[in-house]
Amino acid sequence: MRYVLGIDIGGTNLVVGCVAEDGSALHGSASAPTHAEAGTSDVVDRLVALAQGCIEETRRAIPDAEILGVGVGAPGPLDTHRGIVLLSPNLGWVNFPLRQIIRDRLGLHAELDNDANCAVLGEWWVGAARDTRHAIGITIGTGIGGGLILDGKLYHGASDVAGEIGHATIDTEGRRCKCGNYGCLEAYASGPNIAIRAVEALETGAESRLSAMVNGDLGRITAQTVYEAAQAGDDLALEVVNDTARFLGTGVANLLNVFNPEVVVVCGGVTQAGDHLFVPLRREIARRAFKPAVAACRIVPGELSGTAGVYGAAKVFLDARANA
Amino acid sequence: MRYVLGIDIGGTNLVVGCVAEDGSALHGSASAPTHAEAGTSDVVDRLVALAQGCIEETRRAIPDAEILGVGVGAPGPLDTHRGIVLLSPNLGWVNFPLRQIIRDRLGLHAELDNDANCAVLGEWWVGAARDTRHAIGITIGTGIGGGLILDGKLYHGASDVAGEIGHATIDTEGRRCKCGNYGCLEAYASGPNIAIRAVEALETGAESRLSAMVNGDLGRITAQTVYEAAQAGDDLALEVVNDTARFLGTGVANLLNVFNPEVVVVCGGVTQAGDHLFVPLRREIARRAFKPAVAACRIVPGELSGTAGVYGAAKVFLDARANA
Repeated sequence: MRYVLGIDIGGTNLVVGCVAEDGSALHGSASAPTHAEAGTSDVVDRLVALAQGCIEETRRAIPDAEILGVGVGAPGPLDTHRGIVLLSPNLGWVNFPLRQIIRDRLGLHAELDNDANCAVLGEWWVGAARDTRHAIGITIGTGIGGGLILDGKLYHGASDVAGEIGHATIDTEGRRCKCGNYGCLEAYASGPNIAIRAVEALETGAESRLSAMVNGDLGRITAQTVYEAAQAGDDLALEVVNDTARFLGTGVANLLNVFNPEVVVVCGGVTQAGDHLFVPLRREIARRAFKPAVAACRIVPGELSGTAGVYGAAKVFLDARANA
Repeated sequence: MRYVLGIDIGGTNLVVGCVAEDGSALHGSASAPTHAEAGTSDVVDRLVALAQGCIEETRRAIPDAEILGVGVGAPGPLDTHRGIVLLSPNLGWVNFPLRQIIRDRLGLHAELDNDANCAVLGEWWVGAARDTRHAIGITIGTGIGGGLILDGKLYHGASDVAGEIGHATIDTEGRRCKCGNYGCLEAYASGPNIAIRAVEALETGAESRLSAMVNGDLGRITAQTVYEAAQAGDDLALEVVNDTARFLGTGVANLLNVFNPEVVVVCGGVTQAGDHLFVPLRREIARRAFKPAVAACRIVPGELSGTAGVYGAAKVFLDARANA
């Protein structure tokens, strides 16, 4: 059996796994904290060790496993043709030749793509968006990323920047975003901004179990805390999740009107909010988007929690190999 | 030489022309008011007469001209596979079998696509977006439409609804749009809404030559009036055009971040405002969109004023024929 090593480099975690060529199996999956603050060579060393461990474990499990190469998902913007990370503030990388480094250190051919693109491609290949021609994925974490599968292919645009869904303006005069713009979707619905909106509500004196969950230290509230409180029925947390659904719904409705996809896959911790998120999200989208676009499209959570990026990175390598 | 008859059915005007197979020439171009209020059979009769006149004139000019077929651009939503206009409120059409009617009446093979898609395809084939792989067109008239050329092909989405750029939300709590949503780009920057914003400003008592231009009858102010006043240096009209540029800039910046196109072509009467529109439009886009997406993309007016839809409709026929 032939395998591809998939690597997902996130600001928080590194994840690896050997993916069967037909997407039917994942071996040696492992993850470790990124610890970007330790410096680039340290991050690369640990990534290489994690990757080598994964390959060894796969070869133990499948003695005749052939490793075709490596696919890498990395935070962008990237130059996929040259295999370079142009800029990654979280990792402290500028014009970083990641593909060549991976090739040299692992002795395997490597291909590179954006982390959000990889997550969406993974969900499209073997997850919640399989068997579609037009799919959009939204990844919600520290930021909001996205990827587009159009006519059955990952769409990159003119210069690999396509899919920056998180930086679509949903309110011309809205909240300032870290990107410098105002009113970006990310400024409302990313993990940290979900937490910020909860803290803002608490600071007005609203009642909630959230304060007790962090022993009164509001700075410790994360999006995760909000989802847990919402699942437990906390009114304020439910309102924050509901507002999140409305903001996301505005952004997703725009995508439905412009792309007319068959499926939108929402990935990331936010899916833990379950129906508390998806019911108002679908309602907001139905309210805002064109009826034929709404009728054509499912809005679903990702199915490959944690490994979508690994599957997608492996697929990036396979597609590049097929087109070479 | 081989030709295709292009037909552009608008809410205001019908336009026809015979387009050379290679896009190098247009013969017998003619237009007439649509007069939708006269009823469907009257509109169809006049459209057929206009088309027959165009074919005759082309055959007079080019005696050996061969007419391969007819491409039709019509207001959507459409079902392009079945050749049906699903809904056109302006024309009073529901599930209207336009392609079959054109085939029967003209005795020529016909293909159908959305009017905004045709305009963009025309600009991409022989106009301002030629020689690109990724292009977006925005048509600004009574409404705001759009079309997407992705990887060198018109993109339709899952159910022919793709490209509805005018109904992207730019302000979650904004102006009510005719589509039922709030804060759509169209609710700010369509022709009628440009006029409405000018009238609203005048009603606050602002000084402007606009009032004199319509002899004090503010209901007669159109977007055209505003462009003319702006060209003459009227401060209020310039402010309305400048605001239009900011609204459009928000919508276009979103498209840059998501599609990363090489060119955005702005079509319609609004281009008459010239630099008064395009200078602040480019500034707003540069302020809001990602730098690499901005660097990759030109923002330009259409070059085929009035006939983009005819060229594009002809190309729709040619492409369908090539794929048949």
